[in-house]
Amino acid sequence: MLPTSDKTDMSVFEKVESEVRSYCRSFPTVFEKARGYKLWDQEGREFIDFFAGAGALNYGHNDPGMKEKLIEYLSSDGIVHSLDMATTAKADFLKKFKEIILEPRGLDYKVMFPGPTGTNTVESALKLARKVTGRDTVISFTRAFHGMTLGSLSVTGNAFKRKGAGIPLTNAVSLPYDQYDGKVDSLTLLERYLEDKGSGVDLPAAVILETVQGEGGINVASSEWLKQVEQICRRQGVLLIVDDVQAGCGRTGTFFSFEPAGLQPDIVCLSKSLGGYGVPFAITLIRPDLDTWAPGEHNGTFRGHNLAFVAATEALRYWETDEFAQEIRRKGEKTRTALEDITAKFPDLKGEVRGRGLMLGIEFPEEGFAEKVCEEAFKRGLIMETSGPDSEVAKLLPPLIIDDEGLDKGLAILEKSIEAAA
Amino acid sequence: MLPTSDKTDMSVFEKVESEVRSYCRSFPTVFEKARGYKLWDQEGREFIDFFAGAGALNYGHNDPGMKEKLIEYLSSDGIVHSLDMATTAKADFLKKFKEIILEPRGLDYKVMFPGPTGTNTVESALKLARKVTGRDTVISFTRAFHGMTLGSLSVTGNAFKRKGAGIPLTNAVSLPYDQYDGKVDSLTLLERYLEDKGSGVDLPAAVILETVQGEGGINVASSEWLKQVEQICRRQGVLLIVDDVQAGCGRTGTFFSFEPAGLQPDIVCLSKSLGGYGVPFAITLIRPDLDTWAPGEHNGTFRGHNLAFVAATEALRYWETDEFAQEIRRKGEKTRTALEDITAKFPDLKGEVRGRGLMLGIEFPEEGFAEKVCEEAFKRGLIMETSGPDSEVAKLLPPLIIDDEGLDKGLAILEKSIEAAA
Amino acid sequence: MLPTSDKTDMSVFEKVESEVRSYCRSFPTVFEKARGYKLWDQEGREFIDFFAGAGALNYGHNDPGMKEKLIEYLSSDGIVHSLDMATTAKADFLKKFKEIILEPRGLDYKVMFPGPTGTNTVESALKLARKVTGRDTVISFTRAFHGMTLGSLSVTGNAFKRKGAGIPLTNAVSLPYDQYDGKVDSLTLLERYLEDKGSGVDLPAAVILETVQGEGGINVASSEWLKQVEQICRRQGVLLIVDDVQAGCGRTGTFFSFEPAGLQPDIVCLSKSLGGYGVPFAITLIRPDLDTWAPGEHNGTFRGHNLAFVAATEALRYWETDEFAQEIRRKGEKTRTALEDITAKFPDLKGEVRGRGLMLGIEFPEEGFAEKVCEEAFKRGLIMETSGPDSEVAKLLPPLIIDDEGLDKGLAILEKSIEAAA
Amino acid sequence: MLPTSDKTDMSVFEKVESEVRSYCRSFPTVFEKARGYKLWDQEGREFIDFFAGAGALNYGHNDPGMKEKLIEYLSSDGIVHSLDMATTAKADFLKKFKEIILEPRGLDYKVMFPGPTGTNTVESALKLARKVTGRDTVISFTRAFHGMTLGSLSVTGNAFKRKGAGIPLTNAVSLPYDQYDGKVDSLTLLERYLEDKGSGVDLPAAVILETVQGEGGINVASSEWLKQVEQICRRQGVLLIVDDVQAGCGRTGTFFSFEPAGLQPDIVCLSKSLGGYGVPFAITLIRPDLDTWAPGEHNGTFRGHNLAFVAATEALRYWETDEFAQEIRRKGEKTRTALEDITAKFPDLKGEVRGRGLMLGIEFPEEGFAEKVCEEAFKRGLIMETSGPDSEVAKLLPPLIIDDEGLDKGLAILEKSIEAAA
Repeated sequence: MLPTSDKTDMSVFEKVESEVRSYCRSFPTVFEKARGYKLWDQEGREFIDFFAGAGALNYGHNDPGMKEKLIEYLSSDGIVHSLDMATTAKADFLKKFKEIILEPRGLDYKVMFPGPTGTNTVESALKLARKVTGRDTVISFTRAFHGMTLGSLSVTGNAFKRKGAGIPLTNAVSLPYDQYDGKVDSLTLLERYLEDKGSGVDLPAAVILETVQGEGGINVASSEWLKQVEQICRRQGVLLIVDDVQAGCGRTGTFFSFEPAGLQPDIVCLSKSLGGYGVPFAITLIRPDLDTWAPGEHNGTFRGHNLAFVAATEALRYWETDEFAQEIRRKGEKTRTALEDITAKFPDLKGEVRGRGLMLGIEFPEEGFAEKVCEEAFKRGLIMETSGPDSEVAKLLPPLIIDDEGLDKGLAILEKSIEAAA
Repeated sequence: MLPTSDKTDMSVFEKVESEVRSYCRSFPTVFEKARGYKLWDQEGREFIDFFAGAGALNYGHNDPGMKEKLIEYLSSDGIVHSLDMATTAKADFLKKFKEIILEPRGLDYKVMFPGPTGTNTVESALKLARKVTGRDTVISFTRAFHGMTLGSLSVTGNAFKRKGAGIPLTNAVSLPYDQYDGKVDSLTLLERYLEDKGSGVDLPAAVILETVQGEGGINVASSEWLKQVEQICRRQGVLLIVDDVQAGCGRTGTFFSFEPAGLQPDIVCLSKSLGGYGVPFAITLIRPDLDTWAPGEHNGTFRGHNLAFVAATEALRYWETDEFAQEIRRKGEKTRTALEDITAKFPDLKGEVRGRGLMLGIEFPEEGFAEKVCEEAFKRGLIMETSGPDSEVAKLLPPLIIDDEGLDKGLAILEKSIEAAA
Repeated sequence: MLPTSDKTDMSVFEKVESEVRSYCRSFPTVFEKARGYKLWDQEGREFIDFFAGAGALNYGHNDPGMKEKLIEYLSSDGIVHSLDMATTAKADFLKKFKEIILEPRGLDYKVMFPGPTGTNTVESALKLARKVTGRDTVISFTRAFHGMTLGSLSVTGNAFKRKGAGIPLTNAVSLPYDQYDGKVDSLTLLERYLEDKGSGVDLPAAVILETVQGEGGINVASSEWLKQVEQICRRQGVLLIVDDVQAGCGRTGTFFSFEPAGLQPDIVCLSKSLGGYGVPFAITLIRPDLDTWAPGEHNGTFRGHNLAFVAATEALRYWETDEFAQEIRRKGEKTRTALEDITAKFPDLKGEVRGRGLMLGIEFPEEGFAEKVCEEAFKRGLIMETSGPDSEVAKLLPPLIIDDEGLDKGLAILEKSIEAAA
Repeated sequence: MLPTSDKTDMSVFEKVESEVRSYCRSFPTVFEKARGYKLWDQEGREFIDFFAGAGALNYGHNDPGMKEKLIEYLSSDGIVHSLDMATTAKADFLKKFKEIILEPRGLDYKVMFPGPTGTNTVESALKLARKVTGRDTVISFTRAFHGMTLGSLSVTGNAFKRKGAGIPLTNAVSLPYDQYDGKVDSLTLLERYLEDKGSGVDLPAAVILETVQGEGGINVASSEWLKQVEQICRRQGVLLIVDDVQAGCGRTGTFFSFEPAGLQPDIVCLSKSLGGYGVPFAITLIRPDLDTWAPGEHNGTFRGHNLAFVAATEALRYWETDEFAQEIRRKGEKTRTALEDITAKFPDLKGEVRGRGLMLGIEFPEEGFAEKVCEEAFKRGLIMETSGPDSEVAKLLPPLIIDDEGLDKGLAILEKSIEAAA
């Protein structure tokens, strides 16, 4: 049984919640339950989830193993809120994360708990990079999305979100991402900007990037490009921050999205699916010699969210062997092929499939079309969203644990929705 | 039974966690369980909690009623992560918050979910104030603490935290808080700054303040001062933001800390104890006509943390009658009297009691003394922290649900600790 | 004979000159000639000048000695434009300035040529202070005026001028000037802000001030206040910049306005009357150990304006003995007494005399009254302007070389103008 | 006879002038007289001037016609300093400038007097562009040079100069100039940045550019590129500011450097040679409908420098027919050919000739070589300077009035100097 509410309608949101609410406008129903790749609204209607909490639900909704651990922890009065005091739950997370994630990948990062959201980890990364280097500027890329607080917003590309700041966003320079318009050689430009003493771009503290830009329209940077960016940074003494908040935790087929490119970022930002169960959680991984924080120099009330430690520790079980990663890649390939088949059926739409692993999308050049597709999908029981500055990409972020049946069903709905929208 | 960990020691934190960790240095033990006003470390040692998650645990640790609701919700596969989609749990929270908190106080705020931490709500408030007014500057006060992300840090007073930004903090002006040095008339200065066209302070979007400054050293603004600030704001068309993240949710003896002064802030920031159970949660309350956000103009992955909705809704039960508030005030008076008795016993220390409700502190002018007191308290089984820019205030934030026995025990330890430190 | 123009009217200005023009609106006639304390328009109408180029004509218009030197220099094809190359004219200026101004006052400043205007010297001072200290913030004072380029504007108080920037003005903090509203203890506030680690004001690179604020309304800082500010700066390792652009070059009765207070500023800004003849000229005086500029780190096309060197060198003759300074002080006292007599005759106007030396003004509380006085004065052949954020002060800046007859005549017109305006 | 100085040596500059001095280090002698394209030091040594006051002496030193007018004006006690009051000298300038420069070119700009230096006009242009559009960002280009005050420095490329600010330079974005590294399509990038709502570059108030970058290394933008930039600006509602401080006043072969490209900038900045005689002078030309300044919103003490009006008016005589412009172009072609012949003689140096009109340079890739050339030239009686971020370009800016004999002599010295340096 759920809490006190009788059957509710949307009116309470319209009356009481701020105009800033958005997804409840795209998906106008009241959700009640969820499990795996499915959600149900309070009328009992079932939805397949190809949105997965914007990448926060890689392990699906309400994973039974994590649920059990959470209930057990709650039942035994395990400490829930602990600021940054030492707790057994936190110790467990640190040990497992080191053992299962860091060590097998030859990484020796220090782990910072910067507060439980993506923008907390990004802000902490920017602060540290500036502190360590004594420089002000951070270079980010076109179409980047790093968060809504002032520092993160400064390195975010979206004009609509940027305007929300109400003040000029400073100390950041936006350069072209890989394949940003065919005619611009972004690597040459980055290198020239850094090495030319007349470029007008001050030598930056850091370059921050996503290997696949989720909110920016499922733009995939090639391994070659990423590797080159890393080398340019090394040559100029500039730190490389990978914001793996959306693309990390397995979304692209490996735990860190930068593994195929062989990057060794100086700082890594993780959040979203890191907490496993959809609970707020974030960490900042720091090259040990850069860990020059003074105690308490960055703090926050919810750095010690032990329910997140418990669920996150349990979630790491998925990574004990390579099987889960292989499955993601297999399902990613399968889905990409399906999407290409679908777009091939509607050549007039000029849909373009893009993405990596299970972070996929179809760009539809026609204005408003991708949004129409998502609308049609919702009517048919599939939750999907758009991305890109003009909402031009229909985005697929199914939970990584989805089975083939779920994928097939979702893709079939997608095809019908495209047909209906066309 | 707790998770996989064997008995652990502090070494994992020293090896793997960033140098930024702080409270685990003040309280060097590994905590495991907690209930009400007590914590236990993994050795089974018991501590009385006069820290309460820096104000995030007003209802104590692991409140049984909320625990039951959380377990029930988890067990029934209630949706846990929902971005800002509509859910039954969120609807319940909105209805109850309106019914129990807003309506009886004659408030008609719109509720925004800005992300689950204090700094998220502050950043959203600053953004909205700037957007609505088209102005850049925000006035804050000496000793203010509003958060660690760039926007919130700009209105935070602490030099050590500010330096962490690594770049100049701009678009903010810090004015003297009530009683900031006896010789400065802060109200006159505020008004002159706003009305004088030659003051060098641009007409601000907003004034942001805490009615009691927690991190800044338990500084209490008088009702008269608060009222005057509000009137000055009104006269000049400047918005008033009350950051009630730490002082709100009953900490000072009323749900909102500004009730005794009769303020009607334009925007209110709530977090910390709002989630009831110590889980990340925050809201921004907005005067309806200022709710000019465009959909999605501010967003965030963890705006829809349904475990927080469930616990927060249950926590509101405490506010259905006035009994809880009365008890806070009674215990506040009792504690203050006790503190005054204690300081009277050690006249050489020149301790000065300050605070309101159960947000109390003793300022010790001798450098390092307050820290020594907290150290001694920890040895004796009492968790307390310091605040103020020089850590000069021993701070008491017991859970509001603490009983007299717990209070008495804690205060007795405090007295012994002061004796030991002296 | 003057250039090609026939008798002209104001229409060319209205048609061709930008709307930004201002004084030609207050003094709607076309001026042609000038000498000493007098100007003549093209109709031959004579005006007494109590404005003196906003302080740029302390030696009056077209001083015969300087005129001779200028004509001689031009006639002999002395080099006129030399960037910052070495020239005989510049050598002469440096030698004389050292010999006549610096050495007798026990000052050993290095002399920088930052470009020929007041805002150039202020910008160079701010840059150097930030470079030397590695800090960002500069503290300025309410009602300050330092210039119209972005850096100088950031430390200027006037809201109307500030808005002209079109962007937020940052890295500056405005504190109350001496006697800024009786209730505010500005020294206490300054010191607390600097020494309190929780004040929210970052330790600044420098404090910049005018000893008498000209544009801000003829506000005079007491010697005691100035001395205290200097001592606070010393204690906190903050540089003291005196902007003596308007109050310097004898205006207040000594060459530097800070001599009576016995200040030893770290950096001094001079311009306006420094060039003697009203030609563009400015220097920045720098405590030798702070002269850490790299060659060319600040530059500018008109640093080597040799006509200014020639006239400025000649102007220094006024300072070879103390006689000129004594005369300024005598005439200052005489004028102040006269002003007080005048205001005493119109008690209803509640005029308040203020100023130091020959930098004087009467504040009229009634809105628009001071402007009316200046209008009436113009009609009667006296050039005067207002100052203050609300143009509430009728300002008197007669040339320092004015004789008693000129003063008396001007003051008589002023009295009649006040009468007419009342 | 010149002023009081005996023969002087460089020691006064070393002892008294700030370390920031630069050209007196490159040209270590004390100059005394100048005429046309020649200077003489106090030993009577003659130098040919291929530097021309960094472009401030297009009409050569001490033009006899202007000299006569200046002496006449001084002798007749014409008003010299007038703030922005109306004067006959100013009226004459406005009329002549309109008649000789603006009208024949079909331009109807309003004329603003922003203060007498290049950085004053640039700052005024930036302020106005931001005010008019309500936007913050200004786009400038790699290698740009616009001035040393904070606003102008923000749009300047040189890292060494930028660092002098001591604070982050904000509200500006630096994009690649024409031909900035062969691989980058700067026009595509500019357009994409402006039209892409996800670019991370906020829609700017203005684009500011030099058609030929003098300080940046004599980089010439093609007419096609300039035209495209203008069209991109028009399409996006962005203002185009041409900083013609160095390239204007005939330097490139037409009065405005943008005439061959057929640009119609919204705002034009002029200074340097505008004053004709090397005296400080600057104007800002404003499209009439953009002239939204409030009276006095930007001001400055030396806006009314009547000696500059007199000389500038006289200088306009050069532009009454097209002959002068034709001669510049002829001499430009001749000089370019000579430079190409010279570089052809030293193929190992890989010198690359660049420039337009009489704004020319040779880039020498070998580090320090261009500086060595200028050193050798000075020894041989030729004044030349380098430009570019690594001082890699030997720059030629002979006075435009130079005759063929002077050019030939200078070029012969240049050739010998290159030989000596090689």
